[in-house]
Amino acid sequence: MTTPVRHPGGFPVVGIIGGGQLARMCTGPATALGITLSVLAEAPDASAALVVPSSPVGRHTDRETVLDFARHCDVVTFDHEHVPAPVLEALVEAGVPLHPSPAALVFAQDKAAMRARLTALGVPCPHWALADAGTLAGRQGQLAEFAEGHGWPVVLKTVRGGYDGKGVLLIDEPADAHAWFERALAAGEPVLLEQRVEFVRELAALVARSPSGQAAAWPIVQTVQTDGICTEVLAPAPSLADDLALDLTGTALSIAGALDVTGVLAVEVFELADGGFVVNELAMRPHNSGHWSMDGAVTGQFEQHLRAVLDLPLGATTPLRPVTAMANILGGDDEALYAAYRHVMAVDPGARIHVYGKTVRPGRKIGHVNVSGTDLAQVRSRARHAADYLQGAITE
Amino acid sequence: MTTPVRHPGGFPVVGIIGGGQLARMCTGPATALGITLSVLAEAPDASAALVVPSSPVGRHTDRETVLDFARHCDVVTFDHEHVPAPVLEALVEAGVPLHPSPAALVFAQDKAAMRARLTALGVPCPHWALADAGTLAGRQGQLAEFAEGHGWPVVLKTVRGGYDGKGVLLIDEPADAHAWFERALAAGEPVLLEQRVEFVRELAALVARSPSGQAAAWPIVQTVQTDGICTEVLAPAPSLADDLALDLTGTALSIAGALDVTGVLAVEVFELADGGFVVNELAMRPHNSGHWSMDGAVTGQFEQHLRAVLDLPLGATTPLRPVTAMANILGGDDEALYAAYRHVMAVDPGARIHVYGKTVRPGRKIGHVNVSGTDLAQVRSRARHAADYLQGAITE
Repeated sequence: MTTPVRHPGGFPVVGIIGGGQLARMCTGPATALGITLSVLAEAPDASAALVVPSSPVGRHTDRETVLDFARHCDVVTFDHEHVPAPVLEALVEAGVPLHPSPAALVFAQDKAAMRARLTALGVPCPHWALADAGTLAGRQGQLAEFAEGHGWPVVLKTVRGGYDGKGVLLIDEPADAHAWFERALAAGEPVLLEQRVEFVRELAALVARSPSGQAAAWPIVQTVQTDGICTEVLAPAPSLADDLALDLTGTALSIAGALDVTGVLAVEVFELADGGFVVNELAMRPHNSGHWSMDGAVTGQFEQHLRAVLDLPLGATTPLRPVTAMANILGGDDEALYAAYRHVMAVDPGARIHVYGKTVRPGRKIGHVNVSGTDLAQVRSRARHAADYLQGAITE
Repeated sequence: MTTPVRHPGGFPVVGIIGGGQLARMCTGPATALGITLSVLAEAPDASAALVVPSSPVGRHTDRETVLDFARHCDVVTFDHEHVPAPVLEALVEAGVPLHPSPAALVFAQDKAAMRARLTALGVPCPHWALADAGTLAGRQGQLAEFAEGHGWPVVLKTVRGGYDGKGVLLIDEPADAHAWFERALAAGEPVLLEQRVEFVRELAALVARSPSGQAAAWPIVQTVQTDGICTEVLAPAPSLADDLALDLTGTALSIAGALDVTGVLAVEVFELADGGFVVNELAMRPHNSGHWSMDGAVTGQFEQHLRAVLDLPLGATTPLRPVTAMANILGGDDEALYAAYRHVMAVDPGARIHVYGKTVRPGRKIGHVNVSGTDLAQVRSRARHAADYLQGAITE
């Protein structure tokens, strides 16, 4: 069954481009609400394709494939930010309701556009500049000028396609930029130069906004990154100053409004020693920093994203328990994930396990564990233990 | 895709016979845990078939169909109790792990067997007898004798196939039994005679038990029935005496153990004015009285059933909030269920809506709403309002 079958009673079909775990995790709430999902999947065994009856396989870069897919959907949204602009434009021309719209999505696809827009909006960002000269020497000159103003090291970022630490390079001297500049020149793309920010910790503000303009925010969370990959999320962020929490929530809601974001928006920020913050990244879709909400809030981010893209009233974002900790399960050496369930479930009957149906590759996000309770240190250590055992990092 | 596709990493396939809403509501937790479901569905548009990629259509009464279905599954369980004994026996002979086993399931399929067994176990039951004579006059004699001992009115029950008030008849005089006795005689089946119990309210004890013998119990709930159909559940049952709660939980766990139940067991009881109780019905599957647990407990009944039938350690049954109210959505005159979402979601962002993908028929269970919080009267009225609006019983 590849063509989506609508539920009786006037229910819609939501198309998701991309069959990763974010599409997969929409299935629980979609089923509860009677919303039919259709997923344009990379392969028949993609994470979401394993659980969604209507999962046609096709390339998100192919205009005709995507147009044909969208024909069966009432609304189309995304599992990732990689759909090329010409394909998005073709969808808009064909009258397909896209959420977020291409005009908003560009700020999640293109870091140069994001930096320019946030700066124009007065949102705190790290110092930044573009290395966009037409020659290697020109770009090295731009880098030298930037480093003179903001010091070494400098952070290089590809403007498109980065994720989970990919597309980011910390350099200590001009020669380190050589290969990146050459590659970007060949691709005809600028490179984003950013000041390396000394931060206290990383936080994320997660909000959802509907086409009607209704918006809702979950509590600000702390994200813990290891080697550029998110490994833990603490919700709410412990010991967060009230005014910073308010400021961050307001900033995320302002960005969502100013950029006309529809669906979930994640704003990743660095908390600074002076109590301020700068924005690191934007994502316009359900986000790793919101996985805790699946078990820890009245309405989880996947249900909220569906409500938002369908312009339904948004759900309550109230936490169910005082604290929730999320720990990602990263692929280890062990491929027999299921065999580890017996131990983890016996040790901790309250651990909420979510796996993505992905083959194990070292470092790949293959699932996560949520634990909710009243004591942060305890729930964090429980979530960490379950994830560590499942990924084979510990054996007891 | 009709043949189930296993998740990579050693994950199992659970087969469910029957494609109703109980099978459907297993999909959320199955997806989270990486368990592939395969559903033997009544029709391509059955409730569960709309959301489960592997949903072969076939009759649960046909031995070859069921055997062929089970061949692709590691474990087989049930959406309903209607699989005939010879089909169950064929599955056991073929070596299919069935949960619950036919030896346990018979006590949920056959009310005469249930009454005899519970009585032998010393579990409080209403006074009962079988009208099983070979002639109409013989059965009328048995009825007269029963009524002489326990008074009128008398409750008649079909021993097999009843649900939601069907298969139950309250009679005031012998003539009222005539048609039922004739029909049961023709079918070669006894009729169960039961004393009409004067009860204070209805309660349910929900437990789960695994093949290893681990068991877990949710709090005792109050069920509210209207015309024999469950319309509301209050979890936990308000103002329940501690000793009765303990007694009921212990009774349900004892029954699960004595009958070797695997999976979820619901024990429906009448609370008596003297503080005691009698058992009304047993169900060996996730049950309407446990729908509150999907949003109101750390582990919901559908996940617990999957864990139990796979002999995985059971999850915590702790409530997430002090009280949860569940209200069933019954089919009304209005078929446009989705159109009602806007109002219901706007009025109550905390209402958790679950629909089953069923066409609307008056009185048919087509969904339910859970609301959790701290004040019982408030959450009950909120759940009731949402369900009433969704079923078209109210317009504001």
